[in-house]
Amino acid sequence: RFGSSPIDSALLSKFETTLGQPPHFLLRRGIVFSHRDMDQILALHSQGKPFFLYTGRGPSSEAMHMGHVIPFLFTKWLQEAFNVPLVIQMTDDEKFLWKDISLETARSYTTENAKDIIALGFDPERTFIFSDLDYIGSSPEFYRNMCRVQKAVTFNQAKGIFGFTESDCIGKISFPAIQAAPSFSSSFPHIFNSRSDIPCLIPCAIDQDPYFRMTRDVAPRIGCPKPALLHSTFFPALQGCQTKMSASDPNSSVFLTDTPKAVKDKINKYAFSGGGATVEEHKKNGGNCDIDVSYQYLRFFLDDDQRLEKIL
Amino acid sequence: RFGSSPIDSALLSKFETTLGQPPHFLLRRGIVFSHRDMDQILALHSQGKPFFLYTGRGPSSEAMHMGHVIPFLFTKWLQEAFNVPLVIQMTDDEKFLWKDISLETARSYTTENAKDIIALGFDPERTFIFSDLDYIGSSPEFYRNMCRVQKAVTFNQAKGIFGFTESDCIGKISFPAIQAAPSFSSSFPHIFNSRSDIPCLIPCAIDQDPYFRMTRDVAPRIGCPKPALLHSTFFPALQGCQTKMSASDPNSSVFLTDTPKAVKDKINKYAFSGGGATVEEHKKNGGNCDIDVSYQYLRFFLDDDQRLEKIL
Repeated sequence: RFGSSPIDSALLSKFETTLGQPPHFLLRRGIVFSHRDMDQILALHSQGKPFFLYTGRGPSSEAMHMGHVIPFLFTKWLQEAFNVPLVIQMTDDEKFLWKDISLETARSYTTENAKDIIALGFDPERTFIFSDLDYIGSSPEFYRNMCRVQKAVTFNQAKGIFGFTESDCIGKISFPAIQAAPSFSSSFPHIFNSRSDIPCLIPCAIDQDPYFRMTRDVAPRIGCPKPALLHSTFFPALQGCQTKMSASDPNSSVFLTDTPKAVKDKINKYAFSGGGATVEEHKKNGGNCDIDVSYQYLRFFLDDDQRLEKIL
Repeated sequence: RFGSSPIDSALLSKFETTLGQPPHFLLRRGIVFSHRDMDQILALHSQGKPFFLYTGRGPSSEAMHMGHVIPFLFTKWLQEAFNVPLVIQMTDDEKFLWKDISLETARSYTTENAKDIIALGFDPERTFIFSDLDYIGSSPEFYRNMCRVQKAVTFNQAKGIFGFTESDCIGKISFPAIQAAPSFSSSFPHIFNSRSDIPCLIPCAIDQDPYFRMTRDVAPRIGCPKPALLHSTFFPALQGCQTKMSASDPNSSVFLTDTPKAVKDKINKYAFSGGGATVEEHKKNGGNCDIDVSYQYLRFFLDDDQRLEKIL
């Protein structure tokens, strides 16, 4: 897919050799399924050279759902396995530009979502979570990197990558530069001591890849290292594996704010079943785990391979 | 011109009544020649209500020429006459985006140009000169106003106003929002105590009007007062009244860094003359002051009406 590479057994072996521990189950199970330049990041780690992690969240509502959690859970493992700094961008400016909400509302979503992200247990000493609406106005270096990227990308290029039209507002059109800027260590002088040469690894859902293909294209032209990438697939909605969880449809998603009972009820009521059409049929043929949403969720959350194998 | 009004004798009388002093000679001589909503600003002043001044400079080189000085000289008079705060935006980010220079070079032009601007004698207690490259990264409120404007203007609108093409970089396309933001008092919470309702008067050269027509269009949609405007005409280049001084052509301009002797030599050598073709012709018919660059310069700089009249 546009120059990314699948995560194959050779790379999984390199992970194991480099870290001295098995790769995360999301990697082993193909949920984190492709990458760009991950070999180079593993090589850096072997040589004791620094790099940092960057991921983000578009805070589109107060409630995060389980699908949003996957890249963060995986990022947490990466931070622990590699013992590196992590920056987490909350693109509240993006949500203001794209949605019919005020800046104040977008900013409040950042606070609510940040609580859920913090609750996942990132290393407080090595993690920087920031609101664009706050941080861009607090960091001349971040703004300068935005300018550098904005100078290096034309409307035509942004249109080609993101499908912008002439009716889109000018904020949307220049936004990709804001998502690009955290890939460069010089955007965080307080973390990286004003160094601009520290490489970045971005774990993200695959739909974010266009932003970072653009970033990788621009990086050498502005004298910065290209960020490496690890792509994860989508977490399926309750309605089935071909659907994506949507925060705007409460019945498609399990939210972090749902009570344990609400989660159980939702799964029982809405989760697409791979079971047989009748009890007899089910007893005879068994269920189809490939399309059974409950089983698929276990693939994302159950770290015990043997138990998962047994359920299959 | 697109809804602006000429500065006529009625408005000049209002100036005089409001201020208890004659309007500045640039107003009287039609060099500051049109306006938007200046009546409302005069009314505010009469009522003792606050407003502020905003002007700016695109620091495209180290050297400012006399043409650049005119709006600042006039702004200085406005500040003294009305006794109001003034913000001066140095758009070094714009110059970085438009020109083949680095951010560091653009930022250094701000410092050099700011020295020339300061030397004109603005009230140090009531004047805030800022570099975009520094201030945007130091003011969340400024960035938020940028976002508000960027959400309210489409590519199509920006194209219609500024003639952008699809080959322009995305930074240029969103830049007009950066020039709009200082029109709103909430962009300077440290000056206006976080008030968002203080009206703005922008003295500027006429070529900047498109930015502020856009700003006036957007202002009510983001809950801010429309800025008022005072437009000045161009200062002619040495080559003649139909030409505009250009910093990139040293022989077209008198620079603030030129020595008195260099100024004299430039005027003598290059200033387009309205004199007769021969001494005889000149003695018979006199000169044509309308096209004589030396005389035109006196219209911009000689505040003594009687002396100017005598020269004519």
